[in-house]
Amino acid sequence: MNKLAAVARGDYPADLVVKNARIVNLFTNTYETADVAVYGGTIAGIGEYGGRVEYDAGGRVLIPSFIDGHIHIEDTMMTPANFADLAALHGTGTVLADPHEIANALGMPGLRWLHKASENLPVTILYGAPSCVPASDFETPYRELGTVEVAEMFRTGMAHHLGEMMNFPAVIAGDPDAWAKILLAGKRALTGHAPAVSGKALNAYLSSGINSDHECTTLDEAKEKLSRGMWLMLREGSSFHDLAKLLPAAELCPSRCMAVSDDITATHLLNCGHMDEKLRIMLREGLDEFTALRMITLNPAEYFGLNAGAIAPGRQADFALLDVCALSEKSGVSEVWKAGRLVVKDGEVYGEEAEAPAVPLRRSKVTRLPKPEGLRVRATGDMMRVIGLVPGQAVTECRVMPPLVKEGYAVADVSRDLAKIVCLERHHDTGRYGAAFVQGLGLKRGAIASSVAHDAHNYIAAGLDDESICAALSALAQLGGGLVVVDDGKVAATLALPIGGLMSTLPAQEVSRKLASLEEAAHYLGSEEPHPFMTLSFLGLSVIPELRITDGGLFSVSEWRTVPVFVE
Amino acid sequence: MNKLAAVARGDYPADLVVKNARIVNLFTNTYETADVAVYGGTIAGIGEYGGRVEYDAGGRVLIPSFIDGHIHIEDTMMTPANFADLAALHGTGTVLADPHEIANALGMPGLRWLHKASENLPVTILYGAPSCVPASDFETPYRELGTVEVAEMFRTGMAHHLGEMMNFPAVIAGDPDAWAKILLAGKRALTGHAPAVSGKALNAYLSSGINSDHECTTLDEAKEKLSRGMWLMLREGSSFHDLAKLLPAAELCPSRCMAVSDDITATHLLNCGHMDEKLRIMLREGLDEFTALRMITLNPAEYFGLNAGAIAPGRQADFALLDVCALSEKSGVSEVWKAGRLVVKDGEVYGEEAEAPAVPLRRSKVTRLPKPEGLRVRATGDMMRVIGLVPGQAVTECRVMPPLVKEGYAVADVSRDLAKIVCLERHHDTGRYGAAFVQGLGLKRGAIASSVAHDAHNYIAAGLDDESICAALSALAQLGGGLVVVDDGKVAATLALPIGGLMSTLPAQEVSRKLASLEEAAHYLGSEEPHPFMTLSFLGLSVIPELRITDGGLFSVSEWRTVPVFVE
Repeated sequence: MNKLAAVARGDYPADLVVKNARIVNLFTNTYETADVAVYGGTIAGIGEYGGRVEYDAGGRVLIPSFIDGHIHIEDTMMTPANFADLAALHGTGTVLADPHEIANALGMPGLRWLHKASENLPVTILYGAPSCVPASDFETPYRELGTVEVAEMFRTGMAHHLGEMMNFPAVIAGDPDAWAKILLAGKRALTGHAPAVSGKALNAYLSSGINSDHECTTLDEAKEKLSRGMWLMLREGSSFHDLAKLLPAAELCPSRCMAVSDDITATHLLNCGHMDEKLRIMLREGLDEFTALRMITLNPAEYFGLNAGAIAPGRQADFALLDVCALSEKSGVSEVWKAGRLVVKDGEVYGEEAEAPAVPLRRSKVTRLPKPEGLRVRATGDMMRVIGLVPGQAVTECRVMPPLVKEGYAVADVSRDLAKIVCLERHHDTGRYGAAFVQGLGLKRGAIASSVAHDAHNYIAAGLDDESICAALSALAQLGGGLVVVDDGKVAATLALPIGGLMSTLPAQEVSRKLASLEEAAHYLGSEEPHPFMTLSFLGLSVIPELRITDGGLFSVSEWRTVPVFVE
Repeated sequence: MNKLAAVARGDYPADLVVKNARIVNLFTNTYETADVAVYGGTIAGIGEYGGRVEYDAGGRVLIPSFIDGHIHIEDTMMTPANFADLAALHGTGTVLADPHEIANALGMPGLRWLHKASENLPVTILYGAPSCVPASDFETPYRELGTVEVAEMFRTGMAHHLGEMMNFPAVIAGDPDAWAKILLAGKRALTGHAPAVSGKALNAYLSSGINSDHECTTLDEAKEKLSRGMWLMLREGSSFHDLAKLLPAAELCPSRCMAVSDDITATHLLNCGHMDEKLRIMLREGLDEFTALRMITLNPAEYFGLNAGAIAPGRQADFALLDVCALSEKSGVSEVWKAGRLVVKDGEVYGEEAEAPAVPLRRSKVTRLPKPEGLRVRATGDMMRVIGLVPGQAVTECRVMPPLVKEGYAVADVSRDLAKIVCLERHHDTGRYGAAFVQGLGLKRGAIASSVAHDAHNYIAAGLDDESICAALSALAQLGGGLVVVDDGKVAATLALPIGGLMSTLPAQEVSRKLASLEEAAHYLGSEEPHPFMTLSFLGLSVIPELRITDGGLFSVSEWRTVPVFVE
């Protein structure tokens, strides 16, 4: 006879009873004061119960643990274990993570390591199978992740859903490889990424079965995607802040919207929180507390088919107590349970230390570094294409403007905030690179460089002179991947990222402190971007409009081809 | 390159374009006038399109075809093909059917026949794996359907979800067999049946993972089940009319409620309609049109994981045109498309005749019939238990009252509307039967008998004297199953049900006409029940409170045991 049912009936003691909790009910939009009984990690019942461990909630609010429907853990630069500790502190119980960063940098061995490193943590991490490695044929990762690898990830249980299908042009064009990955995901959630895709192109994208999106930046875009049957993930990360302005879409269809992080830094997690910050934003914007909570608990659970996201019998016992008796934007998480185990109390994470698997051995060895004279861009015309940054957004513009020319070469121009930008292939040490110009980084001298450069994660560097850029790339190669600031020919600050050039083994506070030093050094170079390395890291991503830098040169997303710096 | 995407882009002609339709959008609760393009049975896009076939909607309303989340096709007494023709006429595109009637009567051969007979029809029929055959250990079907058979149905694709888990006492008790069936359904929908189950018993039922219910009869019951995470199916069939009174629950949580039929007759389908009737009821009750439609389209699609239920790119092209330009309770369905194929127009069903598989050969041969003197009930006490009918509800009451005694035997009593009721085992011709009394059928003489007797579908008969009852059972045996009325010792009306004693091979009109003759004959015997055979058919069902008749005798649901007629 089943013990869980016996506990639910009240005939057998529960493992845990949270007594006297003010439970948020997201099915009826009510509060209910009762006990919650847990057995074997599952909620057995709500009512009046006794158990081996009884925990008095003292009438405080009990909510389901948060679920982040879309995040890239590698972008926190932390290991899954260090990320999970920090996320759990903020009430997160589950994240749906797309591991395409490590897939680009380290291929299947990296994915296997990541999956292994995500076991037995205070946060459940469910990975998508990366659908776009490389993000497009114009990027150069360690290895392509093909349909065979995607199928292997589903077969072995490494992947829970299909990761964001960023190659929307391929899907829209009916490309057999892109469609094959979608089809072999079967009934799994098919997550999308279709910035500014609209009308018939959106129809074509959706005809494939993809049914969610996290790239909306305007309310009209959100409404169109919603009306075509997409589940909406409203993004609120470190760089992109779309949640508040898209909330009216959520009010239109409260059961099919979520708030997600996408990209978020350790510093942001430390200072602002994780899903709890999104809850505060939604409440501050006037969304009712039940819909707001639902968007970060029950809705992602429904979309991804998870047995969590609500406090109800039969669901996994993932819940958190707030430090208050009424939910408001001032509420904070105090205690957190994961499958009935108390994992957070008094700002501390409890539980056995998860044993970290050995760091994958392959390290990026880059020996074929460019020389300063190699980076020169010959001025072959009157007008050049420049990557134009748009503050606070992932999109860039293609700005066409005259070059500043010295000795026949186009050079950086502080007066117009033009820096040179270089992308150097690093996975196979081919020495191949592309060079162009970017407007809006704010650098006045020196250079910054990074091995975090979406999505192929080649080396990316920006600077005012070729010597500084070369010095930065050289420092990066010596570090074996990481972040670097070069000032006056010298390395001013670094963060080593030994795991695939993407992740540190340091805990959040250390990662954040080093990142702050790097940002301070970059600001010292003149940059006024709040997060210059994150901005830099997106300038190689060939699937968000409009102009990007790859190791093959400038790339136009709208034209879907490599374009020369100079307009012909 | 994929043709569907090409159609969506507008680069390739669609198979079908429904032009100028006023499309109901259930994601944004709006109307939108546009074309709908279809290719290969799937909706390619919404916008402006051209195609090989263009169908002018003339600005009329286009809705997704209806989905019935819970129905027993056998109870229409029609074959799947005849049922589908009729349901399609009323705009139904998909039904989720629990085939436990035929499972009780004919076992796996019957289920295989039914599955085969449901292919290539204008309505998609998705079957649940019957979870409770027999409904309880106190019923005697042809064969028990065990976990092995349930697993086989999942493995072969015969079953799409777990059929209604009616044996709620077993689930609540933690019975390993009941739990095994639930667990082996994996991520499939787990449909429930838990009449009046509440509090800790409900917690125990839900701890198993079951997550829907169609048995609510009061708003409080509906609210409790909703609050515990169940999807609610509000029932509106031929006998049970719970929809209108439960609608406030749907307003509480519009995304997790459905309207379903459960049991519905051919006559009801002909005269009142199918899901279109439920839509009319909801609109008449003042529910907004979008929520009302969603409850019979998108919501069941979400619950059961179907790629239908909305007009959106990538979904199956199941939709219907209304005969009006604005949705109201007067609207009727005029044209219906199934996977892009026009299946209904001008009140006619189109398409190739589906080839009906051979009727399964095994027929119930009943030779061991009781004799009148064998049916006598000796009066062994002062008070007897009587099955008390509750008008319009599935539940019965246990009424304790003094018998009318003649020559030492309790007999029927017209003055108190007491008839004798008999259940005779028919699948293995054991001759075993139970006899007791029922109050409320209204019979004043003669007898009625049926081989449709939930769930084991043994022969059930009720009448005023033992001779009439025996004559009715004998006529049933000669018919090889069906419905019979006996008046003055003679057979007054019959309907043969050659498929398992459950289904006729006649079309709806014929079934309905014969049923009307039977009901007329029963009314001639004095019955004022509108549907005396349906009422009779539920009196053997051991899983709905309170008192039932089985071939083993009277059965008390609350006591979960066979009880003697006379109180000891």
